[in-house]
Amino acid sequence: MASGDEQVMRNKQVILRAYVTGFPKESDMQLRTTSTITLKLPQGSTGVLVKNLYLSCDPYTRTQMQHSDTPSSFRTLTPGSPITGFGVAKILESGDARFKQGDLVWGLTGWEEYSVINATKIESLFKIKNTDVPLSYYTGILGMPGLTAYAGFYEVCSPKKGERVYISAASGAVGQLVGQFAKLSGCYVVGSAGTKEKVDLLKNKFGFDEAFNYKEEPNLDAALKRYFPEGIDIYFENVGGKMLDAVLLNMRFRGRIAVCGMISQYNLEKPEGVHNLMSVIYKEVRIQGFGVLNYYHLYEKFLETVLPAIKEGKITYVEDVVEGLESAPSALVGLFTGRNIGKQVVVVSQE
Amino acid sequence: MASGDEQVMRNKQVILRAYVTGFPKESDMQLRTTSTITLKLPQGSTGVLVKNLYLSCDPYTRTQMQHSDTPSSFRTLTPGSPITGFGVAKILESGDARFKQGDLVWGLTGWEEYSVINATKIESLFKIKNTDVPLSYYTGILGMPGLTAYAGFYEVCSPKKGERVYISAASGAVGQLVGQFAKLSGCYVVGSAGTKEKVDLLKNKFGFDEAFNYKEEPNLDAALKRYFPEGIDIYFENVGGKMLDAVLLNMRFRGRIAVCGMISQYNLEKPEGVHNLMSVIYKEVRIQGFGVLNYYHLYEKFLETVLPAIKEGKITYVEDVVEGLESAPSALVGLFTGRNIGKQVVVVSQE
Repeated sequence: MASGDEQVMRNKQVILRAYVTGFPKESDMQLRTTSTITLKLPQGSTGVLVKNLYLSCDPYTRTQMQHSDTPSSFRTLTPGSPITGFGVAKILESGDARFKQGDLVWGLTGWEEYSVINATKIESLFKIKNTDVPLSYYTGILGMPGLTAYAGFYEVCSPKKGERVYISAASGAVGQLVGQFAKLSGCYVVGSAGTKEKVDLLKNKFGFDEAFNYKEEPNLDAALKRYFPEGIDIYFENVGGKMLDAVLLNMRFRGRIAVCGMISQYNLEKPEGVHNLMSVIYKEVRIQGFGVLNYYHLYEKFLETVLPAIKEGKITYVEDVVEGLESAPSALVGLFTGRNIGKQVVVVSQE
Repeated sequence: MASGDEQVMRNKQVILRAYVTGFPKESDMQLRTTSTITLKLPQGSTGVLVKNLYLSCDPYTRTQMQHSDTPSSFRTLTPGSPITGFGVAKILESGDARFKQGDLVWGLTGWEEYSVINATKIESLFKIKNTDVPLSYYTGILGMPGLTAYAGFYEVCSPKKGERVYISAASGAVGQLVGQFAKLSGCYVVGSAGTKEKVDLLKNKFGFDEAFNYKEEPNLDAALKRYFPEGIDIYFENVGGKMLDAVLLNMRFRGRIAVCGMISQYNLEKPEGVHNLMSVIYKEVRIQGFGVLNYYHLYEKFLETVLPAIKEGKITYVEDVVEGLESAPSALVGLFTGRNIGKQVVVVSQE
């Protein structure tokens, strides 16, 4: 079946060594430099062959690095195989009529130089039509995190002008956007983060009304009461655990909690207990988990909102970019120590 | 101001002695037989004077017996004053054009023989128009618990035919109705309760598909997996704590949890921790607290559904009736040991 024009290339990969327990370590992953790939789709394939350009480091990946008995909207990673995640890639060959050689796409791909994305995964790919913004933005503000922020805030939280919005992990890939959407919606917006530098970003770059360093607050309940003396209408939940417990004490009547993630819990053998759920009854609070996969139909509408806002400078975005697949394991691990400032991106190739 | 026709009557009352901590005891309340009342509204009053006939024992009352700094949709009880709660009463005198002497009403009243319900509280009163059912039903199936079950199931849970419904505290005032509504909606319905007698009621009288005694289940997660091998679409939450934690492990994608109450938590100094909230993300679960006060506008529609169903025998209701105000403290305390079988009612007077 092999033909003479097939090109065999080195294909550096980041492999999951074994299922992870506790905090992920760089050594849970392995850079494999010995893999090769034939730069040709298998005959009859209806998938695509891509060259990966940018990879996205996302907290949810940690939840896939462990064994799971429970079904998830994402599949779990397999030890011995490359990490998978969102990225920006260029189509080298396509067996799907919707894509052609040279197209730029974003979606689920592998942590490697080249990936074959087979037909069952191809629905996660979006063709990139607007290239007058940084391509890496399609791992963040214009990709999965951006659509997550958009759907989570506008669709799940149903915000109204003047409402009081709190965002944890607020300088992250999703949080920084939720805060800016909330400001554009006329809300009062407070964010928390884990360093002074991030707090400054929230206030001075993203235009949050207030921001605080949660690590300097011995009592999160008291901190929230300081910034929300009349309580919180909308909580965009990225953290979980003690933060959620403190927020529950400060929700307003008919408040909404959009549960996007719980990064403080991903590395725990047993998640922390949340004690203040009775607030949900008295205050008629809605807690809504959501996943971006169910909002892909909003992507075009989302772009129509966000692209002009970027170009007009009404929305800004901060990325933390590292170079090379070899930097990917430490970049991923860094999400859980809060080392990254803004959206964590890995450059695989500048094309 | 006093005039000759004012009648001074003994007014037996059940008084809250002091704020309660931990499990409520009968001695937290006191039967006061020395109070009197002038059977005449104060001049100019726009309230009503009522004779109380039936009182409702409701778990939520426990949450009002303690000091609270957080606002609630119900007010907190005051030590030295009568317990307040839902009941059925007869109007003796009315300063409000909507009610006249002799009208039967249900709504918020006091644990005493006679009550003056002032104008600020009068919005909670409903005139009883249908008296061809037991009057005590207006403390239960036709009153607050009935409307709670109706609104909580139909409005909060958005049930679809064939969905899998789980109800905890299922033989209680609300649970027994939710289960019957769910069966009428074509759902698969499982309930839990704390005695064999109650489990039998669920299966044989209320028509649940399955029922189990949670006290005999060493592993609630395993019990739920036995009855819901494909998971739970709708959980009607009356219990909280460990039960909620087990349910979270068994919710289906886009499942809904209507949080009506958390009776297992009301007597704890510190509520139990709930550990499995991350399921909310993966399964996109909605947890919605709700209170009946916001669904009063549905009451007439509710009656139109439930009254015929009662008369045609399609819905049945079990009450646990005790006689006399002096029995009220033990009846209320009994809710928390599960002594009552069905809706706990106290007869104050047969008119």
